[in-house]
Amino acid sequence: MASKTDAKSRTALEDGALARRLATTRRLSLDLVAPLSDADASAQSMDDASPAKWHLAHTTWFFETFVLRDHVAGYRLFDDRFPYLFNSYYEAEGPRHARPHRGLLTRPSLDAAREWRAHVDAALGRALPGLSPAALALVELGIHHEQQHQELLLTDIKHLFAQNPLGPAMWETPIACEVAQFSAMKWIEGAAGVISLGHGGDGFAFDCEGPRHEVLLTPHALASRPVTNGEWQQFIDDGGYETPSLWLSDGWAWVQSEAVDAPAYWRDGQYFTLSGWRDIDPAAPATHISFFEADAFASWAGARLPTEFEWEAAAAALDPLGGDQLDDAAPVQPAAAVGDTGLQQMFGSVWEWTGSAYRPFPGFRAAPGAVGEYNGKFMSGQFVLRGGSCATPRGHMRATYRNFFYPHQRWQFTGLRLAKDL
Amino acid sequence: MASKTDAKSRTALEDGALARRLATTRRLSLDLVAPLSDADASAQSMDDASPAKWHLAHTTWFFETFVLRDHVAGYRLFDDRFPYLFNSYYEAEGPRHARPHRGLLTRPSLDAAREWRAHVDAALGRALPGLSPAALALVELGIHHEQQHQELLLTDIKHLFAQNPLGPAMWETPIACEVAQFSAMKWIEGAAGVISLGHGGDGFAFDCEGPRHEVLLTPHALASRPVTNGEWQQFIDDGGYETPSLWLSDGWAWVQSEAVDAPAYWRDGQYFTLSGWRDIDPAAPATHISFFEADAFASWAGARLPTEFEWEAAAAALDPLGGDQLDDAAPVQPAAAVGDTGLQQMFGSVWEWTGSAYRPFPGFRAAPGAVGEYNGKFMSGQFVLRGGSCATPRGHMRATYRNFFYPHQRWQFTGLRLAKDL
Amino acid sequence: MASKTDAKSRTALEDGALARRLATTRRLSLDLVAPLSDADASAQSMDDASPAKWHLAHTTWFFETFVLRDHVAGYRLFDDRFPYLFNSYYEAEGPRHARPHRGLLTRPSLDAAREWRAHVDAALGRALPGLSPAALALVELGIHHEQQHQELLLTDIKHLFAQNPLGPAMWETPIACEVAQFSAMKWIEGAAGVISLGHGGDGFAFDCEGPRHEVLLTPHALASRPVTNGEWQQFIDDGGYETPSLWLSDGWAWVQSEAVDAPAYWRDGQYFTLSGWRDIDPAAPATHISFFEADAFASWAGARLPTEFEWEAAAAALDPLGGDQLDDAAPVQPAAAVGDTGLQQMFGSVWEWTGSAYRPFPGFRAAPGAVGEYNGKFMSGQFVLRGGSCATPRGHMRATYRNFFYPHQRWQFTGLRLAKDL
Amino acid sequence: MASKTDAKSRTALEDGALARRLATTRRLSLDLVAPLSDADASAQSMDDASPAKWHLAHTTWFFETFVLRDHVAGYRLFDDRFPYLFNSYYEAEGPRHARPHRGLLTRPSLDAAREWRAHVDAALGRALPGLSPAALALVELGIHHEQQHQELLLTDIKHLFAQNPLGPAMWETPIACEVAQFSAMKWIEGAAGVISLGHGGDGFAFDCEGPRHEVLLTPHALASRPVTNGEWQQFIDDGGYETPSLWLSDGWAWVQSEAVDAPAYWRDGQYFTLSGWRDIDPAAPATHISFFEADAFASWAGARLPTEFEWEAAAAALDPLGGDQLDDAAPVQPAAAVGDTGLQQMFGSVWEWTGSAYRPFPGFRAAPGAVGEYNGKFMSGQFVLRGGSCATPRGHMRATYRNFFYPHQRWQFTGLRLAKDL
Repeated sequence: MASKTDAKSRTALEDGALARRLATTRRLSLDLVAPLSDADASAQSMDDASPAKWHLAHTTWFFETFVLRDHVAGYRLFDDRFPYLFNSYYEAEGPRHARPHRGLLTRPSLDAAREWRAHVDAALGRALPGLSPAALALVELGIHHEQQHQELLLTDIKHLFAQNPLGPAMWETPIACEVAQFSAMKWIEGAAGVISLGHGGDGFAFDCEGPRHEVLLTPHALASRPVTNGEWQQFIDDGGYETPSLWLSDGWAWVQSEAVDAPAYWRDGQYFTLSGWRDIDPAAPATHISFFEADAFASWAGARLPTEFEWEAAAAALDPLGGDQLDDAAPVQPAAAVGDTGLQQMFGSVWEWTGSAYRPFPGFRAAPGAVGEYNGKFMSGQFVLRGGSCATPRGHMRATYRNFFYPHQRWQFTGLRLAKDL
Repeated sequence: MASKTDAKSRTALEDGALARRLATTRRLSLDLVAPLSDADASAQSMDDASPAKWHLAHTTWFFETFVLRDHVAGYRLFDDRFPYLFNSYYEAEGPRHARPHRGLLTRPSLDAAREWRAHVDAALGRALPGLSPAALALVELGIHHEQQHQELLLTDIKHLFAQNPLGPAMWETPIACEVAQFSAMKWIEGAAGVISLGHGGDGFAFDCEGPRHEVLLTPHALASRPVTNGEWQQFIDDGGYETPSLWLSDGWAWVQSEAVDAPAYWRDGQYFTLSGWRDIDPAAPATHISFFEADAFASWAGARLPTEFEWEAAAAALDPLGGDQLDDAAPVQPAAAVGDTGLQQMFGSVWEWTGSAYRPFPGFRAAPGAVGEYNGKFMSGQFVLRGGSCATPRGHMRATYRNFFYPHQRWQFTGLRLAKDL
Repeated sequence: MASKTDAKSRTALEDGALARRLATTRRLSLDLVAPLSDADASAQSMDDASPAKWHLAHTTWFFETFVLRDHVAGYRLFDDRFPYLFNSYYEAEGPRHARPHRGLLTRPSLDAAREWRAHVDAALGRALPGLSPAALALVELGIHHEQQHQELLLTDIKHLFAQNPLGPAMWETPIACEVAQFSAMKWIEGAAGVISLGHGGDGFAFDCEGPRHEVLLTPHALASRPVTNGEWQQFIDDGGYETPSLWLSDGWAWVQSEAVDAPAYWRDGQYFTLSGWRDIDPAAPATHISFFEADAFASWAGARLPTEFEWEAAAAALDPLGGDQLDDAAPVQPAAAVGDTGLQQMFGSVWEWTGSAYRPFPGFRAAPGAVGEYNGKFMSGQFVLRGGSCATPRGHMRATYRNFFYPHQRWQFTGLRLAKDL
Repeated sequence: MASKTDAKSRTALEDGALARRLATTRRLSLDLVAPLSDADASAQSMDDASPAKWHLAHTTWFFETFVLRDHVAGYRLFDDRFPYLFNSYYEAEGPRHARPHRGLLTRPSLDAAREWRAHVDAALGRALPGLSPAALALVELGIHHEQQHQELLLTDIKHLFAQNPLGPAMWETPIACEVAQFSAMKWIEGAAGVISLGHGGDGFAFDCEGPRHEVLLTPHALASRPVTNGEWQQFIDDGGYETPSLWLSDGWAWVQSEAVDAPAYWRDGQYFTLSGWRDIDPAAPATHISFFEADAFASWAGARLPTEFEWEAAAAALDPLGGDQLDDAAPVQPAAAVGDTGLQQMFGSVWEWTGSAYRPFPGFRAAPGAVGEYNGKFMSGQFVLRGGSCATPRGHMRATYRNFFYPHQRWQFTGLRLAKDL
């Protein structure tokens, strides 16, 4: 099983909290697509991205397949042609529509996807009281799965709209952009020595977050806040994108071949947001940067990226429910840090690239069956990000959470926090 | 000027016929997209194809730019961001949205495109009575231009829907499929010697159809009807797709690299139509074949393709308004030839590949200005097709009409008629 | 049979002239590779080019296969692994080494290829007196085939050496570069009306040069000489490479994607020759230009390319043995026209792009068997060049000769002669 | 500085040992290319590989640039055009010939490269007694650098020859192939707890091997020997290449796109060796496998790859001069393990993929200047291999050595040793 839910959390499930969270999560997805037209929701702007409608349908497929089909006697699929269309990458679930062609699925329509959702939600509601613990754990997994897709839905739509010369806004609401004097970054010393990290069993976690194990940390410090747009502009002004010695070899090749000279979505002093083109806020965290850029910035700054262990050790004591995260369907864009003490913006705001390659923890075993494909098979070539972003649903974050992307990818709300050896 | 309209046809323009044809043509485009959702109309399934909405908008751009903007004092553009989005390939009209990314333009919406149409149609209606002959000639050109895009709209939607595993139907109406015994093909001797061909000034024609000039034809015969699906099946059964000696070198490379083993849209005894998957009708003309396939079939049959001159000489005496052409928004699919005398299905049904490379006639000069880019600049690498198809609007065809595509392209309703030397 | 040799030429064959020409041709190939190292002769600088050693071996394979193997009883292949390596594109001769990987064949060595040549030459010498007419015709074809490869060998080596920053010279001998005042181009009126063209049976010709047939020519004139480098410089200075309206659509796409701004091998006022980098001679014919460039230049000059028929009609009366052609192993580079009357440099100097797509003449039938793949299967997408170049072996040219390349290719000694309608 | 040479080793340098090792290393490179023709030594069979001549020249460039040019007053470059040609990837040394086009450098010839070597060797010999410690450290680095290229030279030539249908042998000497019953693999328990690893300063090491630092190891065991060809055949027979659940996601994509179904160089029960095609020895270590294959095999075997730390901890006590390594120019091919106790074949035979991504050790700093580009900039996307192979020069190995390649690469002598948790 890919998720870990202990006896204590089972109590919570039984008392209706799971049903409420399920309903909240399912409703948020619908709210997020509310501003979108059928065409908006069906287009795919690059192979890495998926149409919003596809996200709606795929998360529904997940519940229908792993909960209703597998655990509810007599359940019949809403449409037996849909699994082929909306399976993402589960080899154990059979062949599927090629990922780069998701944008060609103009049918079923957005409304039809909503009907499917309603059908599955109703079936889940009926089935929930009688589900086995194993099935309930899959419901829990499905909620977290859908929360991940909510964030992807937002970043995918942002990418699509940014390709459109009209620069459409998802929400017209202006984003407050207080151009504050950004506070000086401070160094906060981290813990050193042998410490225990990784998920240990209390509450939900993805399989890759465990097992809990001991790690040896060397003396180090973390920056009090993420790097800001103003600091990033200094990097640009200092020739950061033209100095090969700052870059990893693959990163330099990427800069050259893609003609990269700024974070994604920057153009002429503005950046593209889900509310359209806006002036760049120098005090806000820099975002939409690749691992390659984060690493080059750190080299330029005479620092380095934190390891995922350094990050987790520092975050363990902080409240994962705090910070700039996704609460409802409204514009998301990282804002400047408020306050001036301790580690700021560890949760929410921007995902933070770490220097750690995404590999299994000692003793890791992927779950058997299709859901075992959730995390383990992606453990090559990617880097770990920690923390969460302004587009991550609140409640989805925790100190042990391991997000991962390839080092050139930057359409997520990705940023960096500097670290250094002591 | 890209079109040729003589004094006699001007009389027709003045009496309102032009206004009626304009209205008919503009309305047909809207009828064609009526069954489409916003998403259907916005998706692009390959670089060669365009979204249906794009066709609606581009044809509107053509009238707004070349008639209203250039010839109507005081006309203001509906939206001055649209020309960048909906110029196709007119270099003289400035930079434009990259063709392969037309499917990312989910905005303006299909409804917004319809509003633009209504706005432009109203302005055209007001302006028409007072337009100069030069402007009227551009209206005439715009009608023919839009008719071309109506055919493309149908073939592009067909291509899109064929990629969808659900196999959506544009129109549910069943296509009559009378599996008749197909009649034996006969050879009809053609004219030989020096004859005059090409457009000579009477009525509308594209610039590339002229000037009228003399051509020397050698003794030859044309097949009485196009090659049928049943005959194509014999070619397949005889190993046609596995016999390199039948193929042009580039054609064989294409067969190998694309793993081609049948006309486009064939699968397991069925083909995809605008009404969904249907049983293949052995008596209907084979269609969705490339020039390479047409040439290989002719080699296999011990024959050859006609030249465009042989075709035109034979067609000159026939009625271009006859045959299976597009009259209104309804399923299109080539049907079996009816009757048994003379040359059948020369106009309509399927475009017929000729053996003639698309090159200028002696004395050809492209028109000055942007509309001069209409035809002349495409005169390399493509082959001429003659006749028209079931998806060509009736009234758009004539004996001198020169259609052209690359030899590997086959998403149009393309077929072939055999020829031989005598 | 791909070649056409009538009874009269058979007399010549019998008297030893064929043997002498065979020996001369075979020796010239060896002379051409004499300045090359084993590495020079084995490298392949692009998919279109072949290693010099491969040319030596392939021409030997041609004689061994089609003459010795097929017509000499008891002949045993020198090495039965070689046909797989050195068959070029004859599908009927079975599978073969992939063309883009010819440069990986460092074995057999250049010396081994020479040994194979010697072996085959000896066997041919012994067999020649007793060969049947059919076999003798294949020897004749083999000679012309090898002459073609001699020209390719030179242009392929030139391409290879041009990629080397050391700019190696094939021959150190300086090329005379008399910067003369280039003579004014004159227009020479051509024949009009119905005339007979194409090869008619007297002497050797490739199959695609016939059959002889009647063509209708419209009134026109040809330029007295090819376009010069000085004129080409004017085209560049006038923004020729930056003006899309001058270009065919495919040509403009090619200019953009390849960043073309001058003929191949031009750099900083010099061009690369088989004697290394040299100052550009403004009076010499412009060469290493694509069809796209030739066509754009003609548009810029208010003229057009000649048709292949106009060219042939004009050339029929001229001596194909005259002009700047390849006599022995020495530097080749087109020189300025000498003299001032009539049509100059029709044969030799540079191949002249015509406006004619390479398609079959009326009544053309490719020969049966493998040698039938020589020409006919290439009749799509390519354009005809006429005349011959400074790298064409003298004796290989004739008025009916049809060379052909794709419109973007320019590593041959290609140029253009303007034409216009009268 | 990229290398680390302490005071103790400096004593060795001063007494002539360095000069002797330099001479030995330089001579071995020449011996390795002795069987190669000029063409063999100049060809490049893929972007990842380089011509043998290029290796000869590049290693010479390294000494000429970093020792002679930078540390020997008055030294003049042998040919000032060569640095552009033979710089590999040192951005600080300026622009350079594009890597994929190394095979086009047929000049300078193999003999000219040898002359350059002789010139540089003589200059090094004269300069050596008077070199500064910094310069001597660069000589030391140059020796290790050249040893790396000796291994690459062998694997690159092997790749080239394997593309040739003639299957040329570098050395004809037969490889002994005793098809022994392969011994049962045993599990050897490794150390657990906090241990010190990484290079600590005694003797030469590359910068990436340090600094020495503490690592926490969990209880585990290593296999007594690498996986054999016989075991690999079982993996194949059991459908290993057809079972997606065994593979990392990127690995499965690679298997599909490259149609991988066996280690590189396997065909019909044989594999290609530097002595040509040979029967596969089931008892010899499996080699020419990618990380993806190694990982999938481990999954299939119910085990995992060792971390680089587990490997190093186990290797620390073993003799790095033992085992199957490169001593002189002769056939190299991994042989079956001899003996039956302890950890076998840890050094030599095959490089062993570890599960560790190639990332910096805590406190790592790349050296300033061009030689700082040696290792640090490659720390993304690659995996660490440990141990050395039959093609690694003896003396080049040590327990701390970190080799690294991308997970799909397999033209090196790469294999795997299983590990498991205890």
